[in-house]
Amino acid sequence: METMRTGTNLPRVGGFNRAVVLDTIRSLGEVSRVELAERTGLTPQTVSNIVRRLIGEGLVAEAGTARSTGGKPRVLLRVVPSAYYAAGVHIDPERLTGVVLDLAGGVVARSQWHAQDSSPGAVVGTMGRLLTQLLRRAGVPRARVLGLGVAAPGPLDAQRRRLIMPPNLDGWTDVALADVLEQRTRLPVVIDNDATAAAIGERWVGGAAGSFLYVYCGAGIGGGLVLADQVHRGTTGNAGELGHVTVQPGGRLCFCGKHGCLEAYCSMRAIVAQARADRGLEGPAESVAGEYEVLCRAAAKGADYEVRLLTEAARRIGAVLGDVVNLLDVDTVVLGGPALRHVGELVRDEAERVLRERVFARAVLSPTVRPSAIGEDAGAIGAASLVLEGAYSPRLATLLGTEINSYQPMNIPRHSQGGVPGTSLPPHPDS
Amino acid sequence: METMRTGTNLPRVGGFNRAVVLDTIRSLGEVSRVELAERTGLTPQTVSNIVRRLIGEGLVAEAGTARSTGGKPRVLLRVVPSAYYAAGVHIDPERLTGVVLDLAGGVVARSQWHAQDSSPGAVVGTMGRLLTQLLRRAGVPRARVLGLGVAAPGPLDAQRRRLIMPPNLDGWTDVALADVLEQRTRLPVVIDNDATAAAIGERWVGGAAGSFLYVYCGAGIGGGLVLADQVHRGTTGNAGELGHVTVQPGGRLCFCGKHGCLEAYCSMRAIVAQARADRGLEGPAESVAGEYEVLCRAAAKGADYEVRLLTEAARRIGAVLGDVVNLLDVDTVVLGGPALRHVGELVRDEAERVLRERVFARAVLSPTVRPSAIGEDAGAIGAASLVLEGAYSPRLATLLGTEINSYQPMNIPRHSQGGVPGTSLPPHPDS
Repeated sequence: METMRTGTNLPRVGGFNRAVVLDTIRSLGEVSRVELAERTGLTPQTVSNIVRRLIGEGLVAEAGTARSTGGKPRVLLRVVPSAYYAAGVHIDPERLTGVVLDLAGGVVARSQWHAQDSSPGAVVGTMGRLLTQLLRRAGVPRARVLGLGVAAPGPLDAQRRRLIMPPNLDGWTDVALADVLEQRTRLPVVIDNDATAAAIGERWVGGAAGSFLYVYCGAGIGGGLVLADQVHRGTTGNAGELGHVTVQPGGRLCFCGKHGCLEAYCSMRAIVAQARADRGLEGPAESVAGEYEVLCRAAAKGADYEVRLLTEAARRIGAVLGDVVNLLDVDTVVLGGPALRHVGELVRDEAERVLRERVFARAVLSPTVRPSAIGEDAGAIGAASLVLEGAYSPRLATLLGTEINSYQPMNIPRHSQGGVPGTSLPPHPDS
Repeated sequence: METMRTGTNLPRVGGFNRAVVLDTIRSLGEVSRVELAERTGLTPQTVSNIVRRLIGEGLVAEAGTARSTGGKPRVLLRVVPSAYYAAGVHIDPERLTGVVLDLAGGVVARSQWHAQDSSPGAVVGTMGRLLTQLLRRAGVPRARVLGLGVAAPGPLDAQRRRLIMPPNLDGWTDVALADVLEQRTRLPVVIDNDATAAAIGERWVGGAAGSFLYVYCGAGIGGGLVLADQVHRGTTGNAGELGHVTVQPGGRLCFCGKHGCLEAYCSMRAIVAQARADRGLEGPAESVAGEYEVLCRAAAKGADYEVRLLTEAARRIGAVLGDVVNLLDVDTVVLGGPALRHVGELVRDEAERVLRERVFARAVLSPTVRPSAIGEDAGAIGAASLVLEGAYSPRLATLLGTEINSYQPMNIPRHSQGGVPGTSLPPHPDS
């Protein structure tokens, strides 16, 4: 049980400060050296030295000047978006979504593929083709791609980088997805839970910061946790399983083997099954996603039954959010994912209403629920953000020479020579 | 929403490393300079310099030698327990418990007081007298006391250091407890949720580390969260409200205004009320704690009804633990607090059994539930640990020049001159 805290030393401090400067430039978009020093708490001399090297490495460029309040105009710095790219793929039972992001987090290509055959072999093949197609379309050379991020439904075995038992993906029991994809694509591959990926993506594009819960509504319902600026993945990388919080003790049997889970009532499949039963239709839906979409379109137009159906689901989600907020004391909940198409506002409003009724410390805590800045493609953008986050975000682990979170899924190779210290960015291909 | 990451610098690194060395000596009990260097990752020269100053300040002493594997024997170092002390008081509806800990975390005095009058004024007066009595009994001069920690039931207003609405304490609406106690005791006062305090105390004595959930079973049921070595208090300092997780939608009305909370079924009061109803007794119990104790003694002796009653409560606790573990992916749950007296094993066994059935990622995650190392006095020892933790534990905040958690309750004054850098220990009175 005993874990020792470790001290730190000069090279680690240098690397960490470098990563802090790069991340600050990225997240502010454009910033002067003076403001960088103010923001980071580093001395102007340190900032100046770090910036000189980042410019030399082709990662940062000067981008015109800003009017200064007296004195000479300040030169603005920005990240060079085309210096590197990251690819991301989201695996959903009914489709694959792929994106390519540049170093500044902009989406430079996007593609979607409706899977006919969802066996692991077929999906890996499709992912390889999808990636090649995306990079070609974006005009991005493979040498500039830092890695491929994959977002998948949990649970996963983070240590062995395998999907264990994705609920809605038949035949995917214990698949070594990262290894297989690395062989196929010759890129470093990182996998993570889709909701955690979405949370990282949300932070990456500036949609949320500090502490928040990301609720990913896809085929199922997952949660991604960012607590005090750190992504919380837990001991095995499976934190955030909102979908399996009990909402009805002894209630409907869930595929996970428990009774009364949130997903047994509020997954796309459950909502569609409920609607079919209410209408006396027999057998399962031909296309869950298709029928779900029809229900949501009707709800968006104000159809009574569908509004009630979706409101009831939102109420259950809000109740679970109440438990989570009481447990974690976060004041921001972000809702995203494809299941919210057409009904984002309806679900948000009702979930927030129910959540607020349930906050124990309501005298001081008044949480808000808001829509995701990355929306429907949250999974895929989040997957690509995993690569960028792992490759260039300042990590306390760097500073402490250890892993501060129990589990960090990054396996992007670290470039000890010629790369950017404190990050795992390789040396720039042109430098 | 935007939070910037800050860099670090040399004085901060020096302070942090100093705190790391001191904490490592404390937690290992006795350790040589060579082992300190290995454990902390610092160079032998850095360790040697830091240790020299700590000895000069009277915080660390040499404590004999250890046989070395070849070469000369290694001098062992230990913390000087009598260098400083911390006082802790736990406020429970029916009693106050006070302890004094030395710098090594040893209990040097303990006292308990059954409150007749639980109004704020009476309790503050009692706490003042209790503290004076404890220090006199332990022979500890007030100048050596770093501060007074107070553990209280939530919710609290951490920023304003007030108790807002402790559920079982009538007349305690929005009491500025820390300020009032500081005036009365002339000591720095820190307040925190009782379960969070207990979690910190558990870590302080080496009972748990890394990531764990502490379940504090007193009059109510609270949770304390340590995630990746950081205490998670949340945005307002009210994280861990396990007692208000919904276990029965639309169920019994809880004092918090919601229906079906865990505490509406499993608090001492709820269990006693259930037993009285089952036996046809009318009216409320004269002493909830007294009747609860009788039930637990009977359960411990194997009485059928009482075993069923407590097992049912444990089952509900286990179900909530299942939700928490699915959400946070922690593999250790620690059970402590006075409500477990006589029934600790029964509750642990059943809660663990139910928890394990409910783990979604059970292929990789197999959590254990175990008894607290600090037991019944967890609240009071935790309260005193708050002071020690705040005063001398290495904190990332020191290194980053910022607060890494959203909320840190420490207000122990930092001694910028002559104290121990990286901690808020004052200069030693004898130095």
